[in-house]
Amino acid sequence: MSGSSFGKLFVVTGFGESHGPAIGGIVDGCPPGLALTADDLQRDLDRRKPGQSRHTTQRRESDAVEILSGLFEGRTTGAPIGLLIRNEDQRSKDYAEIASRYRPGHADYTYDQKYGVRDYRGGGRSSARETAVRVAAGAIAKKYLAERYGILIRGYLSQLGPIRPRGFNWDQIERNPFFWPCAETVPDLETYMDDLRREGNSIGAAVTVVASGMPTGLGEPIFDRLDADIAHALMSINAVKGVEIGAGFACIEQKGTEHRDELTPDGFLSNHAGGILGGISSGQDIVARLALKPTSSIRLPGRTIDTSGAATEVITTGRHDPCVGIRATPIAEAMLALVLMDHVLRQRAQNADVVPPTRPIPPSVA
Amino acid sequence: MSGSSFGKLFVVTGFGESHGPAIGGIVDGCPPGLALTADDLQRDLDRRKPGQSRHTTQRRESDAVEILSGLFEGRTTGAPIGLLIRNEDQRSKDYAEIASRYRPGHADYTYDQKYGVRDYRGGGRSSARETAVRVAAGAIAKKYLAERYGILIRGYLSQLGPIRPRGFNWDQIERNPFFWPCAETVPDLETYMDDLRREGNSIGAAVTVVASGMPTGLGEPIFDRLDADIAHALMSINAVKGVEIGAGFACIEQKGTEHRDELTPDGFLSNHAGGILGGISSGQDIVARLALKPTSSIRLPGRTIDTSGAATEVITTGRHDPCVGIRATPIAEAMLALVLMDHVLRQRAQNADVVPPTRPIPPSVA
Amino acid sequence: MSGSSFGKLFVVTGFGESHGPAIGGIVDGCPPGLALTADDLQRDLDRRKPGQSRHTTQRRESDAVEILSGLFEGRTTGAPIGLLIRNEDQRSKDYAEIASRYRPGHADYTYDQKYGVRDYRGGGRSSARETAVRVAAGAIAKKYLAERYGILIRGYLSQLGPIRPRGFNWDQIERNPFFWPCAETVPDLETYMDDLRREGNSIGAAVTVVASGMPTGLGEPIFDRLDADIAHALMSINAVKGVEIGAGFACIEQKGTEHRDELTPDGFLSNHAGGILGGISSGQDIVARLALKPTSSIRLPGRTIDTSGAATEVITTGRHDPCVGIRATPIAEAMLALVLMDHVLRQRAQNADVVPPTRPIPPSVA
Amino acid sequence: MSGSSFGKLFVVTGFGESHGPAIGGIVDGCPPGLALTADDLQRDLDRRKPGQSRHTTQRRESDAVEILSGLFEGRTTGAPIGLLIRNEDQRSKDYAEIASRYRPGHADYTYDQKYGVRDYRGGGRSSARETAVRVAAGAIAKKYLAERYGILIRGYLSQLGPIRPRGFNWDQIERNPFFWPCAETVPDLETYMDDLRREGNSIGAAVTVVASGMPTGLGEPIFDRLDADIAHALMSINAVKGVEIGAGFACIEQKGTEHRDELTPDGFLSNHAGGILGGISSGQDIVARLALKPTSSIRLPGRTIDTSGAATEVITTGRHDPCVGIRATPIAEAMLALVLMDHVLRQRAQNADVVPPTRPIPPSVA
Repeated sequence: MSGSSFGKLFVVTGFGESHGPAIGGIVDGCPPGLALTADDLQRDLDRRKPGQSRHTTQRRESDAVEILSGLFEGRTTGAPIGLLIRNEDQRSKDYAEIASRYRPGHADYTYDQKYGVRDYRGGGRSSARETAVRVAAGAIAKKYLAERYGILIRGYLSQLGPIRPRGFNWDQIERNPFFWPCAETVPDLETYMDDLRREGNSIGAAVTVVASGMPTGLGEPIFDRLDADIAHALMSINAVKGVEIGAGFACIEQKGTEHRDELTPDGFLSNHAGGILGGISSGQDIVARLALKPTSSIRLPGRTIDTSGAATEVITTGRHDPCVGIRATPIAEAMLALVLMDHVLRQRAQNADVVPPTRPIPPSVA
Repeated sequence: MSGSSFGKLFVVTGFGESHGPAIGGIVDGCPPGLALTADDLQRDLDRRKPGQSRHTTQRRESDAVEILSGLFEGRTTGAPIGLLIRNEDQRSKDYAEIASRYRPGHADYTYDQKYGVRDYRGGGRSSARETAVRVAAGAIAKKYLAERYGILIRGYLSQLGPIRPRGFNWDQIERNPFFWPCAETVPDLETYMDDLRREGNSIGAAVTVVASGMPTGLGEPIFDRLDADIAHALMSINAVKGVEIGAGFACIEQKGTEHRDELTPDGFLSNHAGGILGGISSGQDIVARLALKPTSSIRLPGRTIDTSGAATEVITTGRHDPCVGIRATPIAEAMLALVLMDHVLRQRAQNADVVPPTRPIPPSVA
Repeated sequence: MSGSSFGKLFVVTGFGESHGPAIGGIVDGCPPGLALTADDLQRDLDRRKPGQSRHTTQRRESDAVEILSGLFEGRTTGAPIGLLIRNEDQRSKDYAEIASRYRPGHADYTYDQKYGVRDYRGGGRSSARETAVRVAAGAIAKKYLAERYGILIRGYLSQLGPIRPRGFNWDQIERNPFFWPCAETVPDLETYMDDLRREGNSIGAAVTVVASGMPTGLGEPIFDRLDADIAHALMSINAVKGVEIGAGFACIEQKGTEHRDELTPDGFLSNHAGGILGGISSGQDIVARLALKPTSSIRLPGRTIDTSGAATEVITTGRHDPCVGIRATPIAEAMLALVLMDHVLRQRAQNADVVPPTRPIPPSVA
Repeated sequence: MSGSSFGKLFVVTGFGESHGPAIGGIVDGCPPGLALTADDLQRDLDRRKPGQSRHTTQRRESDAVEILSGLFEGRTTGAPIGLLIRNEDQRSKDYAEIASRYRPGHADYTYDQKYGVRDYRGGGRSSARETAVRVAAGAIAKKYLAERYGILIRGYLSQLGPIRPRGFNWDQIERNPFFWPCAETVPDLETYMDDLRREGNSIGAAVTVVASGMPTGLGEPIFDRLDADIAHALMSINAVKGVEIGAGFACIEQKGTEHRDELTPDGFLSNHAGGILGGISSGQDIVARLALKPTSSIRLPGRTIDTSGAATEVITTGRHDPCVGIRATPIAEAMLALVLMDHVLRQRAQNADVVPPTRPIPPSVA
């Protein structure tokens, strides 16, 4: 596949299938001296982990991560960090149905076309199970960015099907099983999801991720712009069909006078840019939003073909998330952290020799 | 900057500023044997070139490209292809105003923060002038993909401010100065743009790019998924704030039964996936849409600060596109071509030794 | 460190320290369809493994490799292959001496300078223990190259201190503990090594690696020439101080009439080029030779400084190879295999569309 | 070819053929703020340039370099630096002979095999003419390393056929047309070369390059060790068949007590390591030596085949260097500079956050 690595200087490489013995990865390029334990990774792994509520898949995985290298006396040494998570709940089931037919909306057909061979057990490599490795790696980046630069990376579910939050409070995010920023509308989500589960259907969602405490200067024009790398990172998450930065698609109908973020000695007056100008961070919050499709693994029958090309139907009866967007929040945070970490290192490489940029204005109005 | 290259096997590296002596680039990794002349590149360069109508910037550049290497007797040799475009219309003007103050919505502030030095003449490296190199390189990829695999890459302006096409006809695209697929609404665009120009304002837009005749199997999971690379490519274009594939952001409100593209022996029944499943091309058309912000270079004054941090105002009086989305169509096509070309080469590397994938069904219903 | 990966399309990434819980790696880019078991890797791991004779370190490691992913029903799927080798014989010893002083000729001083922190247990990341991962990954490449292209990669110890073989027979290589191609001189090696061990000293060596059954056309000018990548690969092995291809350093005193390999319709008449012309394989055998320094871990005291900069002495009493060159043969084979595998994939990417090269002459005289 | 770039953070990409309109390249990743003019590059270009004495090829090229981008008011901006050198002396000659037959020892055969098409005019892309771009790019790195870190990179011809210098003086290097460090033996070289030219033959040579004023800590284990990258860089130069660091191949016969460089509070007592331990710079001088083969372009007839595979003879009558090693000195310096520059940036990326390494000892005895 040769596409299993992400990053240029802070490089994450992953491996593992849904129903193989283990998943894992290597984080290469972490600077030495960072205090780190498996617990630091486990916190985010637990946030992503299945079975945390009745609204996500009931597969039971402890997702306990083992750090195999790169630490000495509790600190990173600069050596690559090996990560291992054993799979535990590979339920023994009959995969004959999936083996012989392509689930619509899934990677079954394309994997077969590309590789001529396919590990159909739970989707094999195409399963979102691999995202646990991203979350573990992202937790290292998050910790480094927070401790060293004061960068805080957070995310939330910003839409679930037709439901949008009516208020916003960061403190609510971890108090409900949806990463939802509005306590008032949590019951609407509960009801919607319960109905959906009864129906046997699935629904799309949107996740928003935000990086606060940003330094200016991150991003390498032309092709490795910060926004381009963020788009790459977020679109690489399973089920994502769209990514926008700042005003995003709303900018289509904006005029220049409305979109441009004016500057004053006290800071920018708005943040339609989402914290990035010309591909380089402005110091304002990075704001990115991603659209996640409804999973295609549903109980309602769909037309498809079998591997011989004949018409058939398929029902997916396994344990699946009716809204994959719910568990996507920690994954999206992790990917944003990986991008920022990579660009922090790249910026250090380029800029160490110039006088630290003057910063005539604060990045945004307090 | 170290971010001036795009692609892994078909690698485009660019250089050049808006008001320097020349822009150019190197295309590395083009297979040998492709018939190629400067004219093949010029066609797309002319489509992107400024001054083609009253609705784009009046800067006059012939954008004549010189191929400096990589050809022998009219065919590519496998050696890197050197491209050179001399700048011609670097109007001598007083840049003192821009030099000392940051235009809101522009890269002025972030470049200064990052590099501590800034070529403010016409935006320097941050100018969209560099996209001419992308278009030239993309034209090579387009030609190769068309001749060798029958892949056709086209694009169009799919929204301009509040105006959307009411019909769709590929044949209309090149018959108006907007790359607009609907003859009926061209007068609406003319009127809108004339009003806008009088107002001194700018407007956002959306561009859609489509690849037809796609093979299956392009894309390298996990991180180099085809859609992730497309998102990277399109988001790297100046002024782009959002990218979506297939149903894109509309998938948020879709249910699984609606979104999943069912399969029959005659082909997929819909294309919400935009031609990509699990990061790999399904053989259906690739459909991607990008949102472009309104340029911040407008005649209406805006609040800003000067390089000492003091409050001031700025008016941009140069020659600028009131809707940068208009000229973005050939650029987006070029970027999509670069991604597909890269993945064609990557797929050849991986897959040459397996039996050509069986193709039990056509990719879509005729 | 960010230098833990090798290869562009067939990418090996490793992790692990000498005395950590495990070493391992990820092989990304292996084409689908290759029959593979852990046994295929174990053969070469056993050839490299310590404690096979009294002439190498007495550390006891089974070096049993576990394949964690990338296989389905005994064949590669195209997904990344996770490899894990648990460390077993991390002898509990007092590292206080090494912790506080720099062993001359070792990486102790430079790791401390670079990282400011150092896992001194057995050399940590700088230990040659990590080469087991290279051997495991190389075994995958070897198998693919052999099965798919008939390329055979072999190596031998071509000099040990002052001793050179007097004859040459590939069949002898695996019949003595030295990978030595000449039965007649094996007793000389035994005697030399026994004396050396008694003396408490160490000695340098040379290893030669050869790839037979080569296709023409591998190698990507200018910078990714096949010989440049081989030099990179071999020089990256611990203790290597020199690499030469074909005639190598002997070419300094050769005239053009002597060095150039003349061609006849029956093949090349000599192979001073070592199978590579202009950075591209000619179809002749690839022949590369590497020089390995004597290990600095010896029982004879040496002057050094401690971590405070004060003068002191050091004796290395651990279990070490008196001639690291002996176990280097399978490592060098593995690295050559990785380079060739990568270039096979790269050549497939570039060349699939040209008519297969005519081959007017065989690559060498039978 | 897709191998036309060198470096990871300081990336040089080149293009151009021997007899095309121009050669050139792009230097991406140069930090902003470096004072730079074309003259800074021209000095080294003139040292490499043909026709400087009767002992090198008589092709006349001014090798005047034009800097097309990346500078503003005399300083680098961080943007990519475009370089252009027009070819001037593409002598109109009949290439029919070379076109139809393969010169032994040349890349003619392998390029034909790989690409199926070949620009035979002067060797096309395989000509050493492209090394002018390396020298220009290397001059930028040299200047940066010298001004910012006090690193001095120099080289000399250390052997020409059987002739070795009898003394050593850096000051002599630029006082003879051979980059030879020993005035006493220059007449021997003159005589040897005159005889060789009369004979119509060519001869091999060795070049040594040295970096002084080195910081500690450069190099990224495992695969991007400093010595591995140097080996890669130097072996990528046309005609190079071997590379060694420090003691190099002499280490084969050294014992550990002899090879290891002991440390004292005043510095290392020797430099068999060539300034690199465990792949990381120790602060001592980097010393590397490369072996260059005799050119195969000679007037003495050699057996070969034509493109149909039939036996024939070939004489090369063009303008060629009888000892390509002579002009290789500035090229080798440039390549060493590119490696060090890349690793300086990589080290800055990794290490900016740890306390500057304590340096308890000077790197070598004064």
